Amino acid sequence: MELTVYLAGQIHDDWREQVKKKAGDKNLPLTFVAPQTNHERSDNVGEDILGEQPGNYYKDDAASSINNFRTQVLLQKSDVVIVLFGEQYKQWNTAMDASTAISLNKPTIIVRPKSLIHPLKELSNKANVTVDTIDQALDVLSYIYE
Amino acid sequence: MELTVYLAGQIHDDWREQVKKKAGDKNLPLTFVAPQTNHERSDNVGEDILGEQPGNYYKDDAASSINNFRTQVLLQKSDVVIVLFGEQYKQWNTAMDASTAISLNKPTIIVRPKSLIHPLKELSNKANVTVDTIDQALDVLSYIYE
Amino acid sequence: MELTVYLAGQIHDDWREQVKKKAGDKNLPLTFVAPQTNHERSDNVGEDILGEQPGNYYKDDAASSINNFRTQVLLQKSDVVIVLFGEQYKQWNTAMDASTAISLNKPTIIVRPKSLIHPLKELSNKANVTVDTIDQALDVLSYIYE
Amino acid sequence: MELTVYLAGQIHDDWREQVKKKAGDKNLPLTFVAPQTNHERSDNVGEDILGEQPGNYYKDDAASSINNFRTQVLLQKSDVVIVLFGEQYKQWNTAMDASTAISLNKPTIIVRPKSLIHPLKELSNKANVTVDTIDQALDVLSYIYE
Amino acid sequence: MELTVYLAGQIHDDWREQVKKKAGDKNLPLTFVAPQTNHERSDNVGEDILGEQPGNYYKDDAASSINNFRTQVLLQKSDVVIVLFGEQYKQWNTAMDASTAISLNKPTIIVRPKSLIHPLKELSNKANVTVDTIDQALDVLSYIYE
Amino acid sequence: MELTVYLAGQIHDDWREQVKKKAGDKNLPLTFVAPQTNHERSDNVGEDILGEQPGNYYKDDAASSINNFRTQVLLQKSDVVIVLFGEQYKQWNTAMDASTAISLNKPTIIVRPKSLIHPLKELSNKANVTVDTIDQALDVLSYIYE
Amino acid sequence: MELTVYLAGQIHDDWREQVKKKAGDKNLPLTFVAPQTNHERSDNVGEDILGEQPGNYYKDDAASSINNFRTQVLLQKSDVVIVLFGEQYKQWNTAMDASTAISLNKPTIIVRPKSLIHPLKELSNKANVTVDTIDQALDVLSYIYE
Amino acid sequence: MELTVYLAGQIHDDWREQVKKKAGDKNLPLTFVAPQTNHERSDNVGEDILGEQPGNYYKDDAASSINNFRTQVLLQKSDVVIVLFGEQYKQWNTAMDASTAISLNKPTIIVRPKSLIHPLKELSNKANVTVDTIDQALDVLSYIYE
Repeated sequence: MELTVYLAGQIHDDWREQVKKKAGDKNLPLTFVAPQTNHERSDNVGEDILGEQPGNYYKDDAASSINNFRTQVLLQKSDVVIVLFGEQYKQWNTAMDASTAISLNKPTIIVRPKSLIHPLKELSNKANVTVDTIDQALDVLSYIYE
Repeated sequence: MELTVYLAGQIHDDWREQVKKKAGDKNLPLTFVAPQTNHERSDNVGEDILGEQPGNYYKDDAASSINNFRTQVLLQKSDVVIVLFGEQYKQWNTAMDASTAISLNKPTIIVRPKSLIHPLKELSNKANVTVDTIDQALDVLSYIYE
Repeated sequence: MELTVYLAGQIHDDWREQVKKKAGDKNLPLTFVAPQTNHERSDNVGEDILGEQPGNYYKDDAASSINNFRTQVLLQKSDVVIVLFGEQYKQWNTAMDASTAISLNKPTIIVRPKSLIHPLKELSNKANVTVDTIDQALDVLSYIYE
Repeated sequence: MELTVYLAGQIHDDWREQVKKKAGDKNLPLTFVAPQTNHERSDNVGEDILGEQPGNYYKDDAASSINNFRTQVLLQKSDVVIVLFGEQYKQWNTAMDASTAISLNKPTIIVRPKSLIHPLKELSNKANVTVDTIDQALDVLSYIYE
Repeated sequence: MELTVYLAGQIHDDWREQVKKKAGDKNLPLTFVAPQTNHERSDNVGEDILGEQPGNYYKDDAASSINNFRTQVLLQKSDVVIVLFGEQYKQWNTAMDASTAISLNKPTIIVRPKSLIHPLKELSNKANVTVDTIDQALDVLSYIYE
Repeated sequence: MELTVYLAGQIHDDWREQVKKKAGDKNLPLTFVAPQTNHERSDNVGEDILGEQPGNYYKDDAASSINNFRTQVLLQKSDVVIVLFGEQYKQWNTAMDASTAISLNKPTIIVRPKSLIHPLKELSNKANVTVDTIDQALDVLSYIYE
Repeated sequence: MELTVYLAGQIHDDWREQVKKKAGDKNLPLTFVAPQTNHERSDNVGEDILGEQPGNYYKDDAASSINNFRTQVLLQKSDVVIVLFGEQYKQWNTAMDASTAISLNKPTIIVRPKSLIHPLKELSNKANVTVDTIDQALDVLSYIYE
Repeated sequence: MELTVYLAGQIHDDWREQVKKKAGDKNLPLTFVAPQTNHERSDNVGEDILGEQPGNYYKDDAASSINNFRTQVLLQKSDVVIVLFGEQYKQWNTAMDASTAISLNKPTIIVRPKSLIHPLKELSNKANVTVDTIDQALDVLSYIYE
């Protein structure tokens, strides 16, 4: 059974490549989709497509409408969602994606360092599973195929 | 037409009291509900009810299950949701409540300082309206009754 | 059985007052809600609440977010929707409200002059009932109570 | 990831062919579906299949029922919806299709000339993204695959 | 706990009056709603409101649109549905109302004479309870309050 | 675009074979599914699988549970539903299937002889299209692919 | 804010009376509803209303259809569900009610003795909160009103 | 038409292998999915992935969250659900899976020995079909393809 997995969360390191490589090593029949991971492109896409906006608020609104469009398309095609929180940044769109996925009844795994247990406690409680590491998330995915 | 308004967001100052007072001054027929705003009680409610847990992770999980129960009850009874973000703290449960409300098709207003425009841009784009101040949020509520 | 009726559509004459008066004359236990019918206020509400915007596009976007917020609140509280099309203006938000109401399974009556039969044919076909006059719309509402 | 895109909107020029050609030039794995674009056939299909009707109102109702049937089939099979408004005609079925798509949580892009910003403001606010040109709409679709 | 009960089914005798009287005798806190039970009015309501139609097919279509509007309003306000089948007539709108109620998760009781067991077997299997008499239907309603 | 079509309705002649042959002649990419069309098997399947039942009521209930199971599986996999009514028999399960399909937002075509216009008027009004003949139903299906 | 609470679970002792009394002592504005708690009546209601059945299987099926009708009516009217498991009996209808409530997004509290932790682990994980005693369940309800 | 079948229920004998073999003998185009059937692995998976927990309650909660994740993924991909109850064990997660499947409108077959008729009566009444043996369940699946 092939499954599509949406990888939500921070775009400041290569964690998605690690997930894909580890899934490949385990021969799991998974397809991965994700938000735009080029941070600059993600922030500028509104102006890139719609032209210059009259200030940062409008630039951000234009970019976010296109990022949300992309996320909605890919999230609806996904069977499972993995959400990774890191220690830096506000990551409110990460929390938004996690909560949207849960509201859509998408089975959801949260990955976060132990230092974030307390601020993520309500979201962790609503997700199916919360783990500390990418390897554990892959163990959970792998368990589907045992 | 009487409406119930859920006031999601930070619990570190008395903004909810301000909202209620201002709504009273405008004679708006609104009932307000909210999460537990006593921070200590909110963090401890799991152990308060279920007894001592074997560490902080378990204490947090117990508390969050009861906080999420309360939120689910009150959010489902609400017609409108106002979400306030402040400059401090992670506020991921605030982002979670906002996103859940939007997924449930609850008309949603976000209040946040201009300094948070960028990190909240995707969530603002999905909410109905984003404003800078509580007074503006009340202007929006008041507009329903014009 | 009391019912709430949303009166969608053009805001350029006093048709809503006619509906209310005729419903009163028939002693129908109906409560009517509606969009902002002060056209100027409707167009300016974004800048009235959020402050001056950097051009007409942004002024319109700000206003529409608050008008859509109001419509969503009131439409969700309604049991029945009446939509009136006139001969002037684009009225795309009227078509949008009608289609949203139908998608939400709100029983919907369209009122339009015979001159608009052709351009409204697909929307009329999806609504429950299409009539030519306000009196006929009230006859349909009245029929619920026979 | 292959996606199906419904192209709603006016049927008075060949904009759908332009979309398909440009998507082909970009090698995007998209399948396009659309309403009946032969205007005469669209208007006559009711009488073509069901036989002569007793007047224009009945001819239009018969045609619209079959057009709505077609739209419902194809819209439900689509992952994304692009809606194009032109400067002519009432285009209320275009607004209806856009609003239906949004109500069904289909990610939706509106294309319209700047001259239509004001009358489309509420619908634009509810869609994911609004752009001025077909090229921009394709840039948004293309962004999914970056 | 007050409940609203929709009484679907044949309109050729006074069974609804019997239901109301028996519920009154048992002091059950029930409000009853129903389709138009004046058969002639039900058949003519399309022409009564919309004017003369060009033949029986169009007269029937006009009437049915208004009858369906009424049913949709009242069914959505109901907590329970009772559907009565008699031995005469096609009663396909009765079967339609029963099936719609079941699809909407309205708890549904079918009342039918034993002679109709076979032709109603699939519908009976999908309803919550099927009984032979009005008295038995009231016993089931009464059981809610024990 | 391949579509699956559920053929609901009477099982007393070979109309489904006619539909399939005509669709083949038109080269339409359609897969057809249907209820059990062997009438005797359909009536006996409860006892065939579950063993002898204590009377006709119980035999019918057992058969209908398995017939409803089959219908639910196949209807959920279908993109379009065609419902045929003939002049004989009660056909309440046919009306039930039509109404269930409509409630599930399955695009639905009713085929019925003109003699049944009046008793089917409410159901016809809720379906997308009502036609008189199988050829017309195929013309509607064919229209999707023009 | 008044809430309706459904009390699912075993009917072999007076735990529901304890809940009501304790809620009264705390002055909580709660209305409680429940299944039939007279065990004999619950088992016999099918035959009581529909007449003697041809064996235990048929007697049980008749009773369960009426019990499920009652539960569906009352569960849909409830805002919160409390489910109590005891040490005896199979209690599969209790597990069914809990799971139905969770699927309907009803906020749900499970009460069970510690001896049942292991067999109830999957259900507890899906409920909002699991507690050991009725007093704890009331503490959770009470927390809504703090 | 290929269908995916989720096999819920006890994991203490090889009944799933019997189902697969019998389906193979009948050449039914079915794919089967199931929970983790290695009982020890199912009980330990929480600690296996997340590390040692501070007691049995926490070990069980960790395991159940991963088991529920797996079930949610596979149940959502399934077209049909078969639920088998045996005479031993509490099997509350089996009842939970059955009830969840029914709430999701998955066509559901229950298999149980006649000794369990009484305790399973409410759940049987809500499922599509209840049978005594695996062979009968396969006869029901096979009936889809006749």
